[in-house]
Amino acid sequence: MTITDEALKSPRVQRKRERARQRILQAAEQLMRTHGVDTVTIQDITDAADVGHGTFYTHFKTKMDVLVPICEETAKAHTRRLDHLTADMEDAAEVVSISTRHLLHAIEKDPLWTWFLCNSKLPMDDLRRGIGGSGARDVRRGVEKGRFAPLSEAIAESYLLGALIGVVREHFAGIHEENTAEEAARLTLRTLGVTDDEARQIAHRPLPPLPTEI
Amino acid sequence: MTITDEALKSPRVQRKRERARQRILQAAEQLMRTHGVDTVTIQDITDAADVGHGTFYTHFKTKMDVLVPICEETAKAHTRRLDHLTADMEDAAEVVSISTRHLLHAIEKDPLWTWFLCNSKLPMDDLRRGIGGSGARDVRRGVEKGRFAPLSEAIAESYLLGALIGVVREHFAGIHEENTAEEAARLTLRTLGVTDDEARQIAHRPLPPLPTEI
Repeated sequence: MTITDEALKSPRVQRKRERARQRILQAAEQLMRTHGVDTVTIQDITDAADVGHGTFYTHFKTKMDVLVPICEETAKAHTRRLDHLTADMEDAAEVVSISTRHLLHAIEKDPLWTWFLCNSKLPMDDLRRGIGGSGARDVRRGVEKGRFAPLSEAIAESYLLGALIGVVREHFAGIHEENTAEEAARLTLRTLGVTDDEARQIAHRPLPPLPTEI
Repeated sequence: MTITDEALKSPRVQRKRERARQRILQAAEQLMRTHGVDTVTIQDITDAADVGHGTFYTHFKTKMDVLVPICEETAKAHTRRLDHLTADMEDAAEVVSISTRHLLHAIEKDPLWTWFLCNSKLPMDDLRRGIGGSGARDVRRGVEKGRFAPLSEAIAESYLLGALIGVVREHFAGIHEENTAEEAARLTLRTLGVTDDEARQIAHRPLPPLPTEI
């Protein structure tokens, strides 16, 4: 081990590195929310965070890399609130509908999240990591209770994640219609074996609001 | 207009350029099919096509660019054969099931097509362009006849294209299970409002073979 390696492991250096990383993340998020992801440069970010270029590249390679932890944290916070909201709901179809609608509404309202999912090379992995096992868990419960039709879990997961990414990529980047989230929830319920009459009715029910940050 | 611009417009120069482009495409396809997309370099392609680097970059920027026309032609030839097979079929659910299964089987058997859809930045656009309006037409027919449940065409198209890309990306890159195409067809029929009993039965019927190249 060289002296440099040793120095990098010291708690003080570690804390300094972590503080710089947090400053970069905060500066990047604020700039991108204000000016849009495309117009913000890495130079803008390092200027605002008051760090050198070298420090930036110690932590990230591209603007996309900076967005990974920002959007992952957004998705995780969203999922915690959603899990709280749906924890006591009995009907798996209701839970899947509410989850799909809230997720799509949240992505739709967040230009960083939309940009990220539209530009990521692996949007399905990103979305899966962000929402954790919540979606898969809700689908499994519904199948176990006979509320949903039988399915191959692995194929259904890819199918449903891909379908949501498809809707985000083609409907959230420009001007989008109302009811996109509701129509996507309706198709999701149909995919799970719910009849259209019921799927339409459930997907268009009043949407209970998410609890505030928990 | 400079002399060079004029020269580029002459039919002889145009034909020469087009011949070079075709040689590049043929060499690239053959090399990639033999050795895999990842291992083939642009140098390998220009050597095999017997063209200079400059000529390559007149037509393409990357290996991915070379794959665009190759995979588009593959998809179009596939769609012609599929349209021929399904032209006289009455049941829209049968047509969608057969189309989904043949499309997924064709992608699965073609390492270039799989690689392309797994690495393209816009796989949904590529797939849509390749299969033309056939998928949308079949879905519309089914809705008009009351065979499928009502849907928002734009949202359903994004949802279904995204779902297919999702299945290709997560199930065709590595080792894949049997029946992936059939289970995806079953989910597609359910998305369109067919009951699971019927969707499962239709999606697992013997698959009529595609006609040979037409």
